[in-house]
Amino acid sequence: MITIIVGTNRDQSKSRKIAEYYLTKLENLGEKAQILDLKDLPKDFVFSALYANTGKHPEFNQFIKIINESEKYIFVVPEYNNSFPGVLKAFIDGLEFPGSFANKKAALVGLSSGVIGAALALSHLTDILNYLSMHVYAVKPRIPRISANFVDGVITDKFIADLIDSQIKGFIKF
Amino acid sequence: MITIIVGTNRDQSKSRKIAEYYLTKLENLGEKAQILDLKDLPKDFVFSALYANTGKHPEFNQFIKIINESEKYIFVVPEYNNSFPGVLKAFIDGLEFPGSFANKKAALVGLSSGVIGAALALSHLTDILNYLSMHVYAVKPRIPRISANFVDGVITDKFIADLIDSQIKGFIKF
Amino acid sequence: MITIIVGTNRDQSKSRKIAEYYLTKLENLGEKAQILDLKDLPKDFVFSALYANTGKHPEFNQFIKIINESEKYIFVVPEYNNSFPGVLKAFIDGLEFPGSFANKKAALVGLSSGVIGAALALSHLTDILNYLSMHVYAVKPRIPRISANFVDGVITDKFIADLIDSQIKGFIKF
Amino acid sequence: MITIIVGTNRDQSKSRKIAEYYLTKLENLGEKAQILDLKDLPKDFVFSALYANTGKHPEFNQFIKIINESEKYIFVVPEYNNSFPGVLKAFIDGLEFPGSFANKKAALVGLSSGVIGAALALSHLTDILNYLSMHVYAVKPRIPRISANFVDGVITDKFIADLIDSQIKGFIKF
Repeated sequence: MITIIVGTNRDQSKSRKIAEYYLTKLENLGEKAQILDLKDLPKDFVFSALYANTGKHPEFNQFIKIINESEKYIFVVPEYNNSFPGVLKAFIDGLEFPGSFANKKAALVGLSSGVIGAALALSHLTDILNYLSMHVYAVKPRIPRISANFVDGVITDKFIADLIDSQIKGFIKF
Repeated sequence: MITIIVGTNRDQSKSRKIAEYYLTKLENLGEKAQILDLKDLPKDFVFSALYANTGKHPEFNQFIKIINESEKYIFVVPEYNNSFPGVLKAFIDGLEFPGSFANKKAALVGLSSGVIGAALALSHLTDILNYLSMHVYAVKPRIPRISANFVDGVITDKFIADLIDSQIKGFIKF
Repeated sequence: MITIIVGTNRDQSKSRKIAEYYLTKLENLGEKAQILDLKDLPKDFVFSALYANTGKHPEFNQFIKIINESEKYIFVVPEYNNSFPGVLKAFIDGLEFPGSFANKKAALVGLSSGVIGAALALSHLTDILNYLSMHVYAVKPRIPRISANFVDGVITDKFIADLIDSQIKGFIKF
Repeated sequence: MITIIVGTNRDQSKSRKIAEYYLTKLENLGEKAQILDLKDLPKDFVFSALYANTGKHPEFNQFIKIINESEKYIFVVPEYNNSFPGVLKAFIDGLEFPGSFANKKAALVGLSSGVIGAALALSHLTDILNYLSMHVYAVKPRIPRISANFVDGVITDKFIADLIDSQIKGFIKF
């Protein structure tokens, strides 16, 4: 099972739409996949599910279970303040260490309203995932100027669209 | 006014103790300083104070006000998963862009239970603060093995203690 | 004295042209400035001026002297392989530690043929310069698609041109 | 064929000794492996084998050939100035793009005289290798205080020694 993580808790995010784009691609290739959207997290999880409360929050534990039972992950990562959203890191901080991600595999895709396409965000996230012993697929597409490059569910930039196709096919075999 | 930010919302954190260590040092040098502890944030701020709710949460706005009225900041940064806590980034994601930090100055100190002393955490945070147009003081002490190196409010490693003294004096003039 | 470092040893580099752009700007503001171009380094310096040979290479020592006598630096940084050129790091590896850069100040500008504008390169270089106790000016302009955005000595993108002007004026006072 | 790259051109480097340590381990596991030591590079390669001279330097081309014919790489990375040696990046800058490393696999090990163990160096190098479409094995052992932790060809710290064993076995299957 490949779990696609929407890397923000923003409502009706572009990241969610990109996650759905990946989901369709994966299903068309015959892969089992599902979306985990951070907007569905318990609203106070940063306080109620971390530290002394680790593992004691039944609702948050459902998210841990989904993560633990997956073997591969696709992180859809919007650029916030030259990195990825704090909520994504807080979610990772609430997972089981080192069990949740160890010896598993991740693919990353970045998106931004500006021209960078979350380059630093993907670098920071790779540092963290590698530390958790999760292998990261080398090709990490970036979708800059998301409003222009992603319209009505279609990646309009052919280079980026092809790169994503190649990433998905490579990641399935990774 | 120098605001010392406790970079985690963990209760009774070591970071809080390090913040108090810096506060005392600053006051002894005649500086006005105060502590902002992320554990005091609204428990659901990641949902209730960001995105469409930016600027509309009266309680969170008090934190924005404290940040906006400060000129210098000291970030006390514990290492979580090879970076800094997600809650710190989520807090930054809720501040005003680009006004809150632009053209201001920050000093960073890292701490960890392991040997690294939050080296990657300080690098990631520097990327973000520089992007927000905040100058970061070059010397960023790291306190590894915090339980051994920080006992009863005293930094027991003389090299680290001296480095912090030097950082504080330099930062006041920065 | 502000030394502008051309961050590559490529002959007739765009970085050299950008360095000259900064030089003119600085001189027009009444600042003393000079260019140090890595293409003028001894061709075998990576072997003849480092490690056991540190400080013993008369020609390389002239470069060390220029660096040691400057108080501020502008690094013009082209993007090579998602970071800065190896020759720039090798040059830094040959300087005196920690004396050459400690407590001094640097401004960075990135350029690239692609869309990123050396974002990762500037992050990596900041890690290194901060480690050497050199303060880095927060605003680090990036000039992507250099062939389109820099024509006949003019930055054609007004946003970038204004950002560079603002960086230069701020850096003089930094 | 696994090529172990000694990431510095320093004579009689500790990195060379660590490379030999890995070589023995690999051979004991029945793997074909070889060492490529940057100290054997042409002394002026930074000038004579890059840019307009790319691919035209017969001696340097031998190194390109070794890289191109390998499928996996182990990078032994000493910490110089909070990153990896400039000479290693200059070497990579002289390889064929994107052919040399694309869709291949790398394992990294860091070493340092200080306590960090090249943590930032490994992060920077991962950014570069991932950009070149090379997958990086997640577990990246760091050997801090190399003089104490590596004596007479033996890693004396059992945790690090076991981690390296685990990395090597995992990398063979990666």
